[in-house]
Amino acid sequence: MTAVKPSELPPVPLTLEGASVLHQMLRVRWPAWRSLTAVDRTAILDEAACKLTELEHHRSAAFSMLGHKGDLMLVHFRNSFDELVEVQNKLPALRLWDYLDQSSSYVSVVELGLYESTSKVYASLADKGVAPHSSEWNEEIEATLERQRQAMHPRLYPEVPPSKYICFYPMDRRRGEDKNWYQISMEERQAMMAEHGAVGRRYAGTVKQIITGSIGFDDWEWGVTLFADDPLVFKRLIYEMRFDRVSAVYALFGTFFVGKRVNGDEFRSLLTL
Amino acid sequence: MTAVKPSELPPVPLTLEGASVLHQMLRVRWPAWRSLTAVDRTAILDEAACKLTELEHHRSAAFSMLGHKGDLMLVHFRNSFDELVEVQNKLPALRLWDYLDQSSSYVSVVELGLYESTSKVYASLADKGVAPHSSEWNEEIEATLERQRQAMHPRLYPEVPPSKYICFYPMDRRRGEDKNWYQISMEERQAMMAEHGAVGRRYAGTVKQIITGSIGFDDWEWGVTLFADDPLVFKRLIYEMRFDRVSAVYALFGTFFVGKRVNGDEFRSLLTL
Amino acid sequence: MTAVKPSELPPVPLTLEGASVLHQMLRVRWPAWRSLTAVDRTAILDEAACKLTELEHHRSAAFSMLGHKGDLMLVHFRNSFDELVEVQNKLPALRLWDYLDQSSSYVSVVELGLYESTSKVYASLADKGVAPHSSEWNEEIEATLERQRQAMHPRLYPEVPPSKYICFYPMDRRRGEDKNWYQISMEERQAMMAEHGAVGRRYAGTVKQIITGSIGFDDWEWGVTLFADDPLVFKRLIYEMRFDRVSAVYALFGTFFVGKRVNGDEFRSLLTL
Amino acid sequence: MTAVKPSELPPVPLTLEGASVLHQMLRVRWPAWRSLTAVDRTAILDEAACKLTELEHHRSAAFSMLGHKGDLMLVHFRNSFDELVEVQNKLPALRLWDYLDQSSSYVSVVELGLYESTSKVYASLADKGVAPHSSEWNEEIEATLERQRQAMHPRLYPEVPPSKYICFYPMDRRRGEDKNWYQISMEERQAMMAEHGAVGRRYAGTVKQIITGSIGFDDWEWGVTLFADDPLVFKRLIYEMRFDRVSAVYALFGTFFVGKRVNGDEFRSLLTL
Amino acid sequence: MTAVKPSELPPVPLTLEGASVLHQMLRVRWPAWRSLTAVDRTAILDEAACKLTELEHHRSAAFSMLGHKGDLMLVHFRNSFDELVEVQNKLPALRLWDYLDQSSSYVSVVELGLYESTSKVYASLADKGVAPHSSEWNEEIEATLERQRQAMHPRLYPEVPPSKYICFYPMDRRRGEDKNWYQISMEERQAMMAEHGAVGRRYAGTVKQIITGSIGFDDWEWGVTLFADDPLVFKRLIYEMRFDRVSAVYALFGTFFVGKRVNGDEFRSLLTL
Repeated sequence: MTAVKPSELPPVPLTLEGASVLHQMLRVRWPAWRSLTAVDRTAILDEAACKLTELEHHRSAAFSMLGHKGDLMLVHFRNSFDELVEVQNKLPALRLWDYLDQSSSYVSVVELGLYESTSKVYASLADKGVAPHSSEWNEEIEATLERQRQAMHPRLYPEVPPSKYICFYPMDRRRGEDKNWYQISMEERQAMMAEHGAVGRRYAGTVKQIITGSIGFDDWEWGVTLFADDPLVFKRLIYEMRFDRVSAVYALFGTFFVGKRVNGDEFRSLLTL
Repeated sequence: MTAVKPSELPPVPLTLEGASVLHQMLRVRWPAWRSLTAVDRTAILDEAACKLTELEHHRSAAFSMLGHKGDLMLVHFRNSFDELVEVQNKLPALRLWDYLDQSSSYVSVVELGLYESTSKVYASLADKGVAPHSSEWNEEIEATLERQRQAMHPRLYPEVPPSKYICFYPMDRRRGEDKNWYQISMEERQAMMAEHGAVGRRYAGTVKQIITGSIGFDDWEWGVTLFADDPLVFKRLIYEMRFDRVSAVYALFGTFFVGKRVNGDEFRSLLTL
Repeated sequence: MTAVKPSELPPVPLTLEGASVLHQMLRVRWPAWRSLTAVDRTAILDEAACKLTELEHHRSAAFSMLGHKGDLMLVHFRNSFDELVEVQNKLPALRLWDYLDQSSSYVSVVELGLYESTSKVYASLADKGVAPHSSEWNEEIEATLERQRQAMHPRLYPEVPPSKYICFYPMDRRRGEDKNWYQISMEERQAMMAEHGAVGRRYAGTVKQIITGSIGFDDWEWGVTLFADDPLVFKRLIYEMRFDRVSAVYALFGTFFVGKRVNGDEFRSLLTL
Repeated sequence: MTAVKPSELPPVPLTLEGASVLHQMLRVRWPAWRSLTAVDRTAILDEAACKLTELEHHRSAAFSMLGHKGDLMLVHFRNSFDELVEVQNKLPALRLWDYLDQSSSYVSVVELGLYESTSKVYASLADKGVAPHSSEWNEEIEATLERQRQAMHPRLYPEVPPSKYICFYPMDRRRGEDKNWYQISMEERQAMMAEHGAVGRRYAGTVKQIITGSIGFDDWEWGVTLFADDPLVFKRLIYEMRFDRVSAVYALFGTFFVGKRVNGDEFRSLLTL
Repeated sequence: MTAVKPSELPPVPLTLEGASVLHQMLRVRWPAWRSLTAVDRTAILDEAACKLTELEHHRSAAFSMLGHKGDLMLVHFRNSFDELVEVQNKLPALRLWDYLDQSSSYVSVVELGLYESTSKVYASLADKGVAPHSSEWNEEIEATLERQRQAMHPRLYPEVPPSKYICFYPMDRRRGEDKNWYQISMEERQAMMAEHGAVGRRYAGTVKQIITGSIGFDDWEWGVTLFADDPLVFKRLIYEMRFDRVSAVYALFGTFFVGKRVNGDEFRSLLTL
């Protein structure tokens, strides 16, 4: 058996997937909404607020958005794409749906990148001379993934944190002509991700962060959803991280959405004229 | 007869074209749709579901999309542009068409790039000293293409795979000031494509991939349509490929669309309020 | 009289202008169109088809477009901008205009770049020591242009080719920080254009190409309009050209539009429900 | 205790946050507005002008915009995001809201970057050998921030300046492959910001500038809101600054909005037909 | 008194500002317009044509646009932003305004860059050892500006030229990572602008060019408005200039708009069905 040389090791970090997630940004069509009688508006809100309360029991939440990108953000965490398709396709049955326009959305799955475990298991398999993608290799990798899946289950299938504010944005790793994340070594990527994680841990008490992967599902590679009671913490965390090498050099950011959590009653008052 | 020097060989890989393909992304105009009576909606859905069933017999399929980019995706495989124009132009006759907006589309043809055959036939013609684009050259090339066309017929004119999920995205090869796919040698391109194909083959049992060419037809150079029962496989395949040289350095991606297959009955329930 | 040094010669190739051209992309407003009675629709189509037949006698043509960018493309070749303004401004008088939205357009003039003649006349004037932009220089240049204008008249004021398919796209020459078309020598540009033209000539029997200039008129520098009976030839031609240096390095492409020619009767059937 | 080496000091400048700010750009829907009776328009304007006067007492202001990006800009300074959410969500209760479309918006907080204080306190803590992010470090930093917060209170929670004209634009610091603001040293950033500030001070009498931070809140990193009686001063200030190193090399600009202050009465006349 | 070293001289060229300018691009809402009775349309056109004639006496003009970017362009030259705001805000009082959508606009002021005067006065002040931005410096600069303002008055406050065609486009000076207009010396900029101006002067008899500055007012740094009787001259001038260093390397262009002048009567016929 020939030993596997490090340079032939796959450059792809092992990754765990958890809940399927849909972010929906919605705008209220105010003129049509106001043209209804107060009685109709109340009936429609009764139906919608009731539905929202039901959805909250299945890991969905609603947020009142700041700015013109939308009035309302719905975030749904589910066990599979099938469940996401189902919840999405039932919403138009609400009469309120006629008074809302979808301005944006994001499709992704909760993701944990296992840079450290990857290095260990790749090194151990290389030491044993197991060829990448051989059946022995695949079994060992799958065993590692399964152990991590068990250990990480609560992080892979999270509850919606009860924080007052949400911040969502999609991002890519840069593939520039000169600076290209996908062309540097696993070691460099692992080191930068560790440095990045260290900053995040200093905010552990104040911000809850959920990373979702969207390669193949939406227009950016990852989504970042942050939850905090004090929205200023979003700015401080992201600004501090922007000086990390992995963000400074390799992060490209999409649109930012910010909102305040609303429960059924607050949702009703948001739409009460 | 002067021998042809390798540097004078055409840099263009031989390419086979097959079915003409149209992807149509559609949004439902919910307020107008709901304003109809239940009886009208049923009649309109009867007509549309019946048409969908008919189209499915001619290599069309419908998908319920996730996210705000559309509610419905129709994909049509046909034998020619004439047939695509025909199927497209008959759809507005459906009464349902008044309740749909086309949010996006993609025009392309199934394509197989013959990097290996190209190298062989170019080398053989160069050995014989046949000048590129001479009539002898053209005959030999056409003979090669015709042999491949016969052999590849099922891949050039595919059925729509019966998988539960679809993923579609367009892409370009990078033409940067420094990194330019169209300025590197045929050998380098062939080697990178082979490496890329090797990753794809590891997913052969779980993902069906159809590559379509769209130079001259739409805004990106190629379309990629993936079919799988487990949508997470889209992410794993594309993420792993992103570390290939050909993707890491030379691939630029457009918008990603993801949907779940619906047959006639599921299509009806998608639009039932 | 001091001899003019080559480096002081103007870097601008001589260019002939011919017909003024307007491409109009139109979308049908299906719900409004269907809301008419069949009698009204017939009357409106009678008027429009009759107008189309009239316009075809003045070098206009209509195409049924593939994809969501439009349902209909009108292309008008005229002798001047005045005539283009006139034809454009008469179209809203058609009742059909209320059922169409203009989704895109392109304003340009037929253009022939005279790289070879430019080199010859610049060299000859430099040999005679005539200073650029002197009145003697200007007279010689104008005489050259006038001779070419006579010789090229049929190409400058073309009929719309009778081919079944059209492909239109706008393009720029790259002005990158490193690779800049407008900073390389006339000799290099002339050599690359000659190489590019040689590829085009191999397609002479199957594709008719009309280059139009749009600097100062629209958002890209040139428009390319291709006509062919087999639309696959568009892809083959443009793909092969993409490996030319002038395209690989210096061509930037806009949106691609593809359509099938419709005469008056086909135009009527396109809009018949 | 080991001394902290300068290179290990955090590269993040200390930053103070003040008022939460929302810019709202609005377009009038003229046809709907004109379709009302003069009596209705007057009643709706009475309600809206009255609300505007009330909002002006809480640090909001209205501006008549120049150009098609909007007819009206509302700017709200508040003590918290909670207050911003509240003011935003009460506006749709105005009947006028049915005749307005939000064309754009910006969410940010007043920010003061303390480059000089940062250098001093980092140097002093390094001299004492206090490790970054230790609890001693954190206490010293928080004490510095608190002293500055007290001193800067009027600038952190500003009144809306009474100037006749406003100019608003968002901006980023460049993170190019070669020129990257987040990869240069704190010293270089501090020196460039000082040079930039020196230009600004020459305009102190004529322009009032409010910098707001929007990382995590909106699509650019900062917002710049300028107030002046003579709008030409906006151009002179920004043009002069464009030659500063920090702007020439590291500033990327978004959309510019310009408007003229309107009080309640002027606001009424703006909408009177 | 210490002599000022050239490298410390401000890199900003002196600039004169003149008329405030608003370009408005408008689309006709044909279905709404046609739905009126002929009598109503006539009355509305009477009012609008009368207003246009009045505006033409105050340096406004109307153009019939080619292409889908708009049907109508209004260009207003005024003495101040106050006057621009006023003319803009009176237009919605026209009943025609309900049948028009603003598709685009541009806000700028007539600008003359005084590269030559700047060099002279900076050199003279440096010779005298006057420190930049000292009060003596400021007085001398203001005296220079005032002399030029008097001399240039007709160019700063121009009449709308009576030419048949208009071409408008906005532009930026490039601030690339490598090629950056704002990082090269005043001498280089002055030399390139002189070379650029020499080309322009060869077209003096056929094209009238008005440069407006829009830093702080709109999304590009400058606007270029060209007037000519023969629209082909726009293409020739801009194409020739594209080979100048200042354009080839440092000019970035926005959208191009082209239109034909219409007076009151022609304006009426443009909208007559």
